[in-house]
Amino acid sequence: MEPQPVSFPVSFLSDYGLADEFVGVVHGVIRRIAPQVPVIDVTHGVRRGDVRGGALALVRAVQYLPPGVALAVVDPGVGTARRGVALATAWGYFVGPDNGLLAPAAAMTGGVERAVSLEDPRFRLPADGITFDGRDVFAPAAAVLASAQAALTDLGPEVSPASLTPLLLPLAQEAEGTVRGEVWWVDGFGNAQTNVAPDDLRRIGLAPGDRVAVEARGARHELVWAAAYGEGPAGVVHVDSYGLVAVAIPGGRADEELGLVEGTAVTFGVAR
Amino acid sequence: MEPQPVSFPVSFLSDYGLADEFVGVVHGVIRRIAPQVPVIDVTHGVRRGDVRGGALALVRAVQYLPPGVALAVVDPGVGTARRGVALATAWGYFVGPDNGLLAPAAAMTGGVERAVSLEDPRFRLPADGITFDGRDVFAPAAAVLASAQAALTDLGPEVSPASLTPLLLPLAQEAEGTVRGEVWWVDGFGNAQTNVAPDDLRRIGLAPGDRVAVEARGARHELVWAAAYGEGPAGVVHVDSYGLVAVAIPGGRADEELGLVEGTAVTFGVAR
Amino acid sequence: MEPQPVSFPVSFLSDYGLADEFVGVVHGVIRRIAPQVPVIDVTHGVRRGDVRGGALALVRAVQYLPPGVALAVVDPGVGTARRGVALATAWGYFVGPDNGLLAPAAAMTGGVERAVSLEDPRFRLPADGITFDGRDVFAPAAAVLASAQAALTDLGPEVSPASLTPLLLPLAQEAEGTVRGEVWWVDGFGNAQTNVAPDDLRRIGLAPGDRVAVEARGARHELVWAAAYGEGPAGVVHVDSYGLVAVAIPGGRADEELGLVEGTAVTFGVAR
Repeated sequence: MEPQPVSFPVSFLSDYGLADEFVGVVHGVIRRIAPQVPVIDVTHGVRRGDVRGGALALVRAVQYLPPGVALAVVDPGVGTARRGVALATAWGYFVGPDNGLLAPAAAMTGGVERAVSLEDPRFRLPADGITFDGRDVFAPAAAVLASAQAALTDLGPEVSPASLTPLLLPLAQEAEGTVRGEVWWVDGFGNAQTNVAPDDLRRIGLAPGDRVAVEARGARHELVWAAAYGEGPAGVVHVDSYGLVAVAIPGGRADEELGLVEGTAVTFGVAR
Repeated sequence: MEPQPVSFPVSFLSDYGLADEFVGVVHGVIRRIAPQVPVIDVTHGVRRGDVRGGALALVRAVQYLPPGVALAVVDPGVGTARRGVALATAWGYFVGPDNGLLAPAAAMTGGVERAVSLEDPRFRLPADGITFDGRDVFAPAAAVLASAQAALTDLGPEVSPASLTPLLLPLAQEAEGTVRGEVWWVDGFGNAQTNVAPDDLRRIGLAPGDRVAVEARGARHELVWAAAYGEGPAGVVHVDSYGLVAVAIPGGRADEELGLVEGTAVTFGVAR
Repeated sequence: MEPQPVSFPVSFLSDYGLADEFVGVVHGVIRRIAPQVPVIDVTHGVRRGDVRGGALALVRAVQYLPPGVALAVVDPGVGTARRGVALATAWGYFVGPDNGLLAPAAAMTGGVERAVSLEDPRFRLPADGITFDGRDVFAPAAAVLASAQAALTDLGPEVSPASLTPLLLPLAQEAEGTVRGEVWWVDGFGNAQTNVAPDDLRRIGLAPGDRVAVEARGARHELVWAAAYGEGPAGVVHVDSYGLVAVAIPGGRADEELGLVEGTAVTFGVAR
């Protein structure tokens, strides 16, 4: 584990929060092993233990991250028998628990080419305890991959990509002239992103500028499909910056005003 | 303590918060364009949409930031017709929305020499949606300016500095032997910085060590003008680390105990 | 814009929080003085003014941080006569207030070899006010030490290591077949780390797999000493990732369910 010339960055996402020193310690471990490797903090604000929320944040972010290593830790099963894995895709490497967290981002970047279980003790820190795999298992693996101090298959036995834990993400469904989806993400501004694509709305006859009937939590709202965010003082349906249909209230909070939280079922239809 | 040659850093301030991956994605975009450019996170804790609060944080910080590029995004008008701009001053470049956010810091660093509207599509990311200009417009502009991959005028048409949106900041006023000002900032320790300068207090006859009558929210408090922060167990008026008059309660919170929030009117006078 | 030779990093811990620009300004000051010095944010979420909590976070982290400079600021006495100091140990330098914050980490890394009081005005920023020593005193000292622009003894007069303020940390005590300790840290997941070592439990006849009687806040709980974190649905006693005895509820929060906060007295005994 000798220092290397400047190399791939590590992009780091977790549910550690920033109140404790967990994130800083992971940075420290990476820098001790590979001083030249830059680390980008994607976010550490994933809700604790929310594997799906973390997976969705990673899949939104990965297309904007520099190729290299994605280190992701949302790991309610730490200390149990779940595997730690490193995956190779066309984008680079994904390192984290095998609990579905990495699956959507790996699929989005071309699919898993090879996978290993992180078992080789040469690339793990000796630990007194058993509950901080981000520090002891995942950070060393990310550091040696980013700095090319080890090849993927040095880190442990290969495992079949087909054996990796998937993440089941519900798809939007068309039914009786409506599109039924759900909220995937409420961002800090209160905007609610759904799993509905604009083409789903087009298939039921909607187009930008139309009024859209939005049903959620037993209430029905008539909102404009706005082409620009500033339109529609009451609330808008729009294509958000990730290309998905979102509900927003410009200057307000769609989550609070319309009762939208992650997982809320939402039906879109033609307003008459 | 001589500066060393490296590349210009980007200093990044926003109201994005850290719960979502917005900040990490902006870092990713900058690194993909300009891997050698370091990014300093000034703060991402500006209250959402609080342009004045963001502008004041930037003006407090900029004198301590390394010359380069300041990327600032507090942008309640995103998706509307407001311009995105890049400004050149003697300090370096300011990149962000043209809504007043950049104005005080640009003025403090010598004033705007040249300004452009960020319209050239070569330096914008193609976006599905319309609401994440930090990622798609401002980050690329900051990255190419910091790495000298583009000149200011490559980024879009020049606009007149006089046409930029100003930020109106109220000045303290002397009246009837008092100084009337307001709270500009309550920091995380509960200290309330005002827009009053120590010379304003001197002009009404006050000096360090004097008792000062502080009126706010209909109540009147007699506090010491303390030369050292540790003085005055009940509460102090002092010159804070930015050279402005602040009200603090050592070991306590002036905001909670005296009802001071951003914008609260405060009058200082001679205590008899 | 060529890469520079890698220099010592600064690892930065504080109670500044991230809502204000304090942390970013300290980064800016370091970069202006020493652009090649990387800065690791250990955490800025120490409870405001909690010197003991900050000292414990630093001592947990330091063994994982790259040798260099630790800049730590939890400083309720800022603006009083307390000294600012820089300490040399076998690990590197510690810079911060002389209030006990640095003492445990300095002791853990071999003890203080030399110490200076940060008084030389050449390595302080001229400040209008008196309350931001992190920016004006500690950051410049950390920057010049990390970049070898100054030697320790350039920064001010030497002081005796014996004169430094200690931090008194209570030790666990054995009494009547029990071990009496206290909670040192509740992490963001609700796990409660105590000052009890696993050998303390062994000395009263306990071993992994045994049932342990845990008394806290007048209530008595029977928990398993779990070798793996996933064991024990109700709650476990385990050796945490720092080698200390902790109380956790897998999938839950020990702090909320058992009333454990920092400082709570906890007694461990043999469950019959």
